[in-house]
Amino acid sequence: MKRTAFFLSDGTGITAETLGHSMLSQFSGVVFEQITLPFVNSHETTAEAVARINEAAERDGARPIVFSTLVNEEHREILSRCRALILDMFAVFLGPLEEELGVRSSHKVGQSHSIRDHEAYRIRMEAVHFALDNDDGARTRHYDMADIILIGVSRSGKTPTSLYLALQFGLYAANYPLTEDDFDDLRLPKALLPHKDKLFGLTIDTERLAAIRSERKAGSRYASQRQCDMETRALEALFNRYNIPSINATELSIEEISTRILAKTGLQRRLQ
Amino acid sequence: MKRTAFFLSDGTGITAETLGHSMLSQFSGVVFEQITLPFVNSHETTAEAVARINEAAERDGARPIVFSTLVNEEHREILSRCRALILDMFAVFLGPLEEELGVRSSHKVGQSHSIRDHEAYRIRMEAVHFALDNDDGARTRHYDMADIILIGVSRSGKTPTSLYLALQFGLYAANYPLTEDDFDDLRLPKALLPHKDKLFGLTIDTERLAAIRSERKAGSRYASQRQCDMETRALEALFNRYNIPSINATELSIEEISTRILAKTGLQRRLQ
Repeated sequence: MKRTAFFLSDGTGITAETLGHSMLSQFSGVVFEQITLPFVNSHETTAEAVARINEAAERDGARPIVFSTLVNEEHREILSRCRALILDMFAVFLGPLEEELGVRSSHKVGQSHSIRDHEAYRIRMEAVHFALDNDDGARTRHYDMADIILIGVSRSGKTPTSLYLALQFGLYAANYPLTEDDFDDLRLPKALLPHKDKLFGLTIDTERLAAIRSERKAGSRYASQRQCDMETRALEALFNRYNIPSINATELSIEEISTRILAKTGLQRRLQ
Repeated sequence: MKRTAFFLSDGTGITAETLGHSMLSQFSGVVFEQITLPFVNSHETTAEAVARINEAAERDGARPIVFSTLVNEEHREILSRCRALILDMFAVFLGPLEEELGVRSSHKVGQSHSIRDHEAYRIRMEAVHFALDNDDGARTRHYDMADIILIGVSRSGKTPTSLYLALQFGLYAANYPLTEDDFDDLRLPKALLPHKDKLFGLTIDTERLAAIRSERKAGSRYASQRQCDMETRALEALFNRYNIPSINATELSIEEISTRILAKTGLQRRLQ
């Protein structure tokens, strides 16, 4: 069975997409073609969206699913005439919220980002540049400013996680790769010792690590099962020895790794 | 008026937060204390959540607002007893979806990320490393692999936007800073010329640019109004001359910049 799902928004479409992905993932037996229609904020763009939705209905022989975060009432009225199941976030939640809060909502378009004001932008930008400057152990002298220092073997997901922590939560996340040299004597590198309380470990299953590394350097010692096995074992021993909190990132998305780190460390985000 | 808002989830909480931020932003007159409670996936954690919500109700003298994406029915039943307005995403949308699709949903916890599987993880990881390697004009020899090359003056948001495009959409985004040397003769740098079709410009208002640069190097020529004015004017002239598409990023969040770039270029994301 195939269906088309539309994520419709007067803004970026991120809220509609996030909501939609979440709901659709509950129907693993259905294949959805997913189309995001952002910036639907005029009569014309709404009419275009309706046309695309109706075309999909025709083509699929079944009603598309439309996740909508449109705010404007006229545009929602135009949309309501299309041949689809419309899941309208504002219709469902805004009424109860207005009643509870005892005020009318602004019905303003494109308000969804709390991260649009200048101060928030600055925090984010600084955090991103901190993550870049302190990626992969490139520099260690600014670790006193770090909120967290991720450690793990090469290709265990430290870099994307650091960047996600910076972009999403405004956190100052450094990362430092542990290598064979560090495993020889099972000691933390000198640069990390003064910041032991900020260290957080990422572990990964040996097979998965070897697979990831093989995509980069197939057939190399670096990507061999034996080498990956040695590194992951030594890493766990090191974490145990120094009592460093860690999570196994093997089956987790970057979002999951990041939010689990927050939950486990109690680290407060700098951005809401 | 102050209220506490909870974003409650059995997973990362990202869907509940995104939805919640979107809805709450419609009530600009109300101050919300926002608390995310992720990984609520047992009787115990649900009971803890209920306790925290009830404490907030007591403290505020008003019912908290709870955005919930809990899937498990028993946990939702426990949650329903707390003193709050509960906006339950699954209760509202799952029924109509099941009816439309003619199948029961899996009611499985933590399914929200389409980006959790290994192939998607690989795409994301490669895209992030591409963005890092090709940040700030560091290298230009891999531009044939780029999906897009962002250009603009220093501190106009190129780096965070490149990273967001990589993390969120899996796109290979390079960025290259244009400087005084490039403005002297209003010619594109040689490294960019063969890739003209991939160029996308970010512009920014002079005052805002000066403010951002001043946070970094207050009182410098680099941060002066005069310098920023010269650069932003020359940049626009360059974009006009070469017919390079661009957007003004001054009042936009990184999400907005990124999604507008997609909308304007028609670039297809590599990740859903």
